Amino acid sequence: MKKIQNIVIGLDIGGTNTKFGLVAQEGKILAKSTVSTKGYENINQFIETLHNEINKLIKNLPEKMSIKGIGIGAPNGNIFKGTIENAANLDWKGIIPIGALMQEEFNVPVKVTNDANAAALGEKLFGKGKNISNFMMITLGTGLGGGIIAGNNLLYGYSGFAGEAGHVIVKENGRLCGCGRKGCLETYVSANGLLKTVKEMLSETEEESMLRNVKFDTLTSKNIYEYAKNGDFIALKAFNFTAEILGKALANFTALLSPEKIFLFGGLAEAGDLLVKPTEKYMNNNLLSVCKNTVSIEKSGLKSGDAAILGASALIWQLC
Amino acid sequence: MKKIQNIVIGLDIGGTNTKFGLVAQEGKILAKSTVSTKGYENINQFIETLHNEINKLIKNLPEKMSIKGIGIGAPNGNIFKGTIENAANLDWKGIIPIGALMQEEFNVPVKVTNDANAAALGEKLFGKGKNISNFMMITLGTGLGGGIIAGNNLLYGYSGFAGEAGHVIVKENGRLCGCGRKGCLETYVSANGLLKTVKEMLSETEEESMLRNVKFDTLTSKNIYEYAKNGDFIALKAFNFTAEILGKALANFTALLSPEKIFLFGGLAEAGDLLVKPTEKYMNNNLLSVCKNTVSIEKSGLKSGDAAILGASALIWQLC
Repeated sequence: MKKIQNIVIGLDIGGTNTKFGLVAQEGKILAKSTVSTKGYENINQFIETLHNEINKLIKNLPEKMSIKGIGIGAPNGNIFKGTIENAANLDWKGIIPIGALMQEEFNVPVKVTNDANAAALGEKLFGKGKNISNFMMITLGTGLGGGIIAGNNLLYGYSGFAGEAGHVIVKENGRLCGCGRKGCLETYVSANGLLKTVKEMLSETEEESMLRNVKFDTLTSKNIYEYAKNGDFIALKAFNFTAEILGKALANFTALLSPEKIFLFGGLAEAGDLLVKPTEKYMNNNLLSVCKNTVSIEKSGLKSGDAAILGASALIWQLC
Repeated sequence: MKKIQNIVIGLDIGGTNTKFGLVAQEGKILAKSTVSTKGYENINQFIETLHNEINKLIKNLPEKMSIKGIGIGAPNGNIFKGTIENAANLDWKGIIPIGALMQEEFNVPVKVTNDANAAALGEKLFGKGKNISNFMMITLGTGLGGGIIAGNNLLYGYSGFAGEAGHVIVKENGRLCGCGRKGCLETYVSANGLLKTVKEMLSETEEESMLRNVKFDTLTSKNIYEYAKNGDFIALKAFNFTAEILGKALANFTALLSPEKIFLFGGLAEAGDLLVKPTEKYMNNNLLSVCKNTVSIEKSGLKSGDAAILGASALIWQLC
């Protein structure tokens, strides 16, 4: 007879792809796969596809699986209602009761939150945050997401959408944000923000830069990083500018939240010392005196490919 | 035989006076009094004086009292260590182990935090926050203090000093703050901030104002309020300027914390609709869309004279 293994299904719904995995209690991913998020006639067809694919994963494993629940990280995921609400990057518009639909299909508990909150929970259960009661997770992708662990719990707030660090306004009348307002942190501190900074610097100054040899439209945060590593003046200046804005914002967040650690996760965080060190410098230079030496910045302890699945699964594992 | 009544001693240590009261479970203050905070040879003499005065209060009551503990609100009060740390307005410099000293003197549990955190707890236990899981308390006095209730608990953070809303920097290279940095929220939004705003407006413009007939040095936030009520142009403009800065800051705090309510307490909050209404307007105009209609601003439900004592007592009552 097969041994029975308790697992949670961790599901990360992105604009293009949906990643999912079978996660054991200690955060080990036993199997994972991906389906497209696009191209379904309706949400039910998407869920049916997911069900089939998840069943395939389970059947391929040597042990018998008992599914404890399904955790979902999704843009604008609402923990209280189990819904995805008006997510700009998804085909399904309006308010999607993804939690209820999945629960009906799988007959197990389902929890939904946004991806940055899920990442913070993942860090708490399976990453560097295990023994840290108060920390902040900053996810740096196309945009900037935030998740707050306060007193060992994820801070959802009244709306369920707390932690929206990317939409704290840091510059009055600053860059236009996808949210319709101006000067949001993520318009500066994100892959897109860095790109915009470099383009501005290239067009507004005559400073020397190898980036002038790259076709404007093929610039990416990744090649900016490569040039910065090679000492390119504009690339380094852009990283420094990004770090200054992020560091000052984190000093403000610390006055409010007093985290012990701030974990950076995602594409830009991979720039490592090019971003983390100067961000920490600017943060420390701007900290309120009672906050000095109480907070530090580190790269996340989660593997980039697995973080979203682990984080989503943490929504259920934290209840077990 | 006298009936035994459980009480908590609530103690509010200010720069000039220390207020204290005997607080019953439902937040009723059975008796209260005040001693000077200044003029003692050392902290022990201060504590001895307090002990004598508290004993007098207790003896004057008809019932027999059982003291459950002592809650202390004090500038830079550290909940984790029971200390007052480098408080600029107090005679005792450095780190004062007020918790341990009081515990020795009274032989009951003692808890210490800063005044704004205590006020937030007071609102939670005895004010309008009873049934609200996520709210923010903003205390508007000479400066600006903040306390955050998140998931029904006061957010202390790693340092114990979370909630320092007054020291979130809202203007790059803005007004010099007592903390040594520039542009802190409290340099604009506080009694002193309002005063500075009016003085700037009077000296930098030729706009008509009855405030020009008030001696510059005798201007106070209170007479600015009186003139504003009477429609004075500069006084109203100063309140609007203050509300704009506060409203925008609260919109940012909401992105991070998602409170259901933001309670305003203290001198400036007494200005009522002159401050609350425009602050709410500016906050709403600057909210991230997912936060719209999730948060509102109200005056605190605590009586101004009693709030500090009630808040301090809540440190102990919440444990009972």
